[in-house]
Amino acid sequence: MRAIATVSISGDLSDKLEAIARAGFEGVEIFENDLLSWGGTPEEVRELAQSLGLKIIALQPFRDFEAMPEPQRTRNLERAERKFELMKALGTDFLLVCSNTSNHAVDDPERAAADLREMAERAQAHGLRIGFEALAWGRHISDYRDAWDIVQRADHPALGLVLDSFHTLALDLPTDPIAAIPGERIFLVQLADAPVMDMDVLSWSRHHRCFPGQGRFSMASFMQALADTGYNGPLSHEIFNDSFRAAPPRETALDGMRSLILMENMAEHSPFFQSLPSPPVCDGVHFMEFTLDEESAAPLSHWLAAMGFCRIGRHRSKNIDLWQQGDMHVVLNFETDSFAHTYRLIHGISVCAMGFRVNDPELVMARASAFQARSYSGPIGAGELKIPALRGIEGSLIYLVDPETARDRQWRTDFELSAHDEQPDAGLARIDHISQVMPSTQLLSWQLFYKTIFDFEAGSEHELADPRGLVLSQAMTSRDGTIRLPLNASQATETLPGRFQAEHKGGVQQIALATEDIFATVDQLIANGLPLLDIPANYYDDLAARMDMDPELLQAMQDRNILYDRNEDGEFFQAYTPLFADRFYFEILERRGNYQQFGAVNAPIRLAAQSRQVSQSGSRR
Amino acid sequence: MRAIATVSISGDLSDKLEAIARAGFEGVEIFENDLLSWGGTPEEVRELAQSLGLKIIALQPFRDFEAMPEPQRTRNLERAERKFELMKALGTDFLLVCSNTSNHAVDDPERAAADLREMAERAQAHGLRIGFEALAWGRHISDYRDAWDIVQRADHPALGLVLDSFHTLALDLPTDPIAAIPGERIFLVQLADAPVMDMDVLSWSRHHRCFPGQGRFSMASFMQALADTGYNGPLSHEIFNDSFRAAPPRETALDGMRSLILMENMAEHSPFFQSLPSPPVCDGVHFMEFTLDEESAAPLSHWLAAMGFCRIGRHRSKNIDLWQQGDMHVVLNFETDSFAHTYRLIHGISVCAMGFRVNDPELVMARASAFQARSYSGPIGAGELKIPALRGIEGSLIYLVDPETARDRQWRTDFELSAHDEQPDAGLARIDHISQVMPSTQLLSWQLFYKTIFDFEAGSEHELADPRGLVLSQAMTSRDGTIRLPLNASQATETLPGRFQAEHKGGVQQIALATEDIFATVDQLIANGLPLLDIPANYYDDLAARMDMDPELLQAMQDRNILYDRNEDGEFFQAYTPLFADRFYFEILERRGNYQQFGAVNAPIRLAAQSRQVSQSGSRR
Repeated sequence: MRAIATVSISGDLSDKLEAIARAGFEGVEIFENDLLSWGGTPEEVRELAQSLGLKIIALQPFRDFEAMPEPQRTRNLERAERKFELMKALGTDFLLVCSNTSNHAVDDPERAAADLREMAERAQAHGLRIGFEALAWGRHISDYRDAWDIVQRADHPALGLVLDSFHTLALDLPTDPIAAIPGERIFLVQLADAPVMDMDVLSWSRHHRCFPGQGRFSMASFMQALADTGYNGPLSHEIFNDSFRAAPPRETALDGMRSLILMENMAEHSPFFQSLPSPPVCDGVHFMEFTLDEESAAPLSHWLAAMGFCRIGRHRSKNIDLWQQGDMHVVLNFETDSFAHTYRLIHGISVCAMGFRVNDPELVMARASAFQARSYSGPIGAGELKIPALRGIEGSLIYLVDPETARDRQWRTDFELSAHDEQPDAGLARIDHISQVMPSTQLLSWQLFYKTIFDFEAGSEHELADPRGLVLSQAMTSRDGTIRLPLNASQATETLPGRFQAEHKGGVQQIALATEDIFATVDQLIANGLPLLDIPANYYDDLAARMDMDPELLQAMQDRNILYDRNEDGEFFQAYTPLFADRFYFEILERRGNYQQFGAVNAPIRLAAQSRQVSQSGSRR
Repeated sequence: MRAIATVSISGDLSDKLEAIARAGFEGVEIFENDLLSWGGTPEEVRELAQSLGLKIIALQPFRDFEAMPEPQRTRNLERAERKFELMKALGTDFLLVCSNTSNHAVDDPERAAADLREMAERAQAHGLRIGFEALAWGRHISDYRDAWDIVQRADHPALGLVLDSFHTLALDLPTDPIAAIPGERIFLVQLADAPVMDMDVLSWSRHHRCFPGQGRFSMASFMQALADTGYNGPLSHEIFNDSFRAAPPRETALDGMRSLILMENMAEHSPFFQSLPSPPVCDGVHFMEFTLDEESAAPLSHWLAAMGFCRIGRHRSKNIDLWQQGDMHVVLNFETDSFAHTYRLIHGISVCAMGFRVNDPELVMARASAFQARSYSGPIGAGELKIPALRGIEGSLIYLVDPETARDRQWRTDFELSAHDEQPDAGLARIDHISQVMPSTQLLSWQLFYKTIFDFEAGSEHELADPRGLVLSQAMTSRDGTIRLPLNASQATETLPGRFQAEHKGGVQQIALATEDIFATVDQLIANGLPLLDIPANYYDDLAARMDMDPELLQAMQDRNILYDRNEDGEFFQAYTPLFADRFYFEILERRGNYQQFGAVNAPIRLAAQSRQVSQSGSRR
């Protein structure tokens, strides 16, 4: 059963239940605070859940119970009796008891077991069950193995174990011993992931948990050990996350469902295993589509031509141009009655679609559908090609094209192709990466979208210093490295991505194009009249001090405003255009050796230069 | 000399220097990244600083220098030579060298000393000096005592020690040994404070530093030990803080100046001691002033009357009413050509001023002036009383009245007082606390404002769960507890304070009034027709389960929508009005025993109830 705890979602209890049901969950844990602050009665919660098709699988948490001295012990049992009455009103038969964090608690497993046995006995008298969970910061019991020891000592049929991946993996406990626990003695499994952080486990847990797949915990080892137990009860998310508390409930619930489907797919021998269409083998970004008005057509066409692109075709039935260079295609969409136009109304002139080359587009569509992604089909003319497409989180499209169609048929079918111009290209061969901007509360949603549907991997997180605040950046990359999508978000509203988010509602802000010879390419671009972002001389002075650089190479870089990075894998050269119409910009780059990063060390230099450009153009608010 | 490092302030290098100069600093440390990303030359930085009257006291940091194996050692010395040239262009004679964090560094104090001696010798040849600082996460040198040991071993006149309060206090190092260091061997002192956090010291340092006085470090012990050394060089803030990076540069620089003035005042025997007018002895909130339009006059007057306030006067020359109950006065300002009107144009109907009773208003004004707070004087009629006033951070006023004037003369002079109505009061005797809302990037500014001028103490931080995100709350309280000002901020834009900030640009959102008998008072308010915020029955069921409560008392609370808290000091009862015009609300409370808190445990219940009210009134966006 797919379940989630109400604390994971924002809103009041009815907002939460509605969002949870709509995302397709079957079960819900009622986090007690959500009930206490709700205006309705427990009976009304039961009715609402029923009407939404949700089973209330647990009331939680019941705190600071076991191994207390008197009179707290007696008080605690009275408190339990009251909660049993509440559970009956709610229509749930299960109460989660988490290990005691009180300083008054006694370090005595026998006492803890006796108390839990007594509570279980009382629960059973009401037809109820309880489960015991080790909190990672429990006073005496913080390891699930100790909790399991106590459950065994208590030896009562109405008492079982609750496992939580966060409490297990945050303490770096081994997961192998889970496999030896009989599945029927596990009454509930809670799932949560988290980024790796070196901080106290309570704050980490209360603020930084995330859905499995969004963090860095070894969820696979947890899920595989769990599969060995034969456990077939609910898998339930329990996420405490500051951003989730502030995000729209339906978006969070959808992410939770995606995460759970991914987790179910992690161990083939588990009772809850669900087979999924395989993720695609990717073969690079095939094209980008810009949505433009007539006014921006000339300046962008000028830029494209200056970058060595050539206009090679015109759509047979639509107001759409096709440009090409090397392996790359650029589509300029001027339609006024289309998806592109709708997107333009919200986001302004922008990149409204990307095309990915994948081995089997229909299989990706099937996988995307399993993860509840939205597909898109636009109107097509007679004889034109139908290209499968998904909607990204902010509404732009991802077209999926197999390499063979991509090579030739796609363009020939839909476009009137013209003879190539004589103008030489600039040596730009492929789209290296495309950076997208989103609200910082949504970065994890985008990450999970690309991870679940495309099996992209999350790179390391970078905090980039913009002159007006920090920018968080994390790249999602296809397994073979042919598609790279850095995600950028900033809580600060005056940074480059912060302003882009506020003014243009996010989307693609950067398009990075790769060359095999950045010096020749940049010379060509300059000769063609393409403006490049000015890099301060101070940067090159420092580069000379920091690194052992050939002075001639350094001078060649400085002459061309080329930035540089180097690591043990290789070298990296990058140059930037200014912002086009205060919206998006292009990067020109060359990778040497096996350098796989994005030059994060240079980002503050680039962000400051862009900030100067924006100041000068007078468009800063 | 008062100084600050450029990294502490947002913007590009010229924004930073201008803000720093405008706040009255005399010196500035150039954080090298700010220079690298700047478009101008080092010579232009020197000229800009000169024109602003700023001395560049340091270039910083020079990293990973000492105790490296070859060939890095030689490379490092070459790197130093390049930076010496840069320093000359910048016009600074001092370079900050921080302890090596590289894994390649050798654990050999003699080697470290020899390398620093070599570097100092080379610096001296250029007429320059260097200072060595222990980073708290240095590979082999993380304690200022070890750095001092190495400086002594190197024994070179161009090499001195750099002390940083963060690196000292974050590791909880004793400050007493500082006192034994000769002041002339300390070349620079950097100041930073921080909240107490249980996380890795590098992340703590890079993201959570704050100005001294805004955090929890024992800055007094650091400053006193420093005074013992006789050090008389620059005191320089070096703050890495995510919010400061995003905040307006001038506001941050002003906070930095306030903080530095506070620090200079910490040790009477220090060379940099500056005497300040004493902070006030407070005697409670004397009055609140609402700015209103004619439309809101009747409904708010109705509420005030229902709360037991009585209209007792009319201003002699202005469209202002005076209300009273017990020790409290409420001023309703309907002027259309006044400060109150200007404030209303920005913030809507609101609390535009508070009056504090203080022993010596003019002394507070002098202290406020020393801390660069803005004073306010409005037009007054002939024979009317001039009451000193300060501007708060968002622009509202704080009037200062001595108890004697407050008792009688103030109102009698300016107002035509009428005979009291017959209506009995409701037992509300004093203003217990007033809560203000601000952007989360500004919470520390407000805290420092009240701390420096009024010597208010910061209470513990609470994270309150609103249904739509977390709210950070921290109270500033006068030493005697008679004035309490909780500060509330939320990064989430849909929480109650988040919406208030977005829609009304912050200010007072809550006014809490104290009674000695909350049951009698609430009965009276209900009888008078005052609406109260509905508290769910689930809350009381849980209260009964959690606490040993007299069932009759519990029932009496539930009947009256009274919330409850208890701690080792005493008991707390509280009830709320709904939001008035979707803006502010009143709390009615009773403290029993020595309870000094604000019932944070009940805040989620209150926030959810307010959220329901806003939903029902249809004003949620």
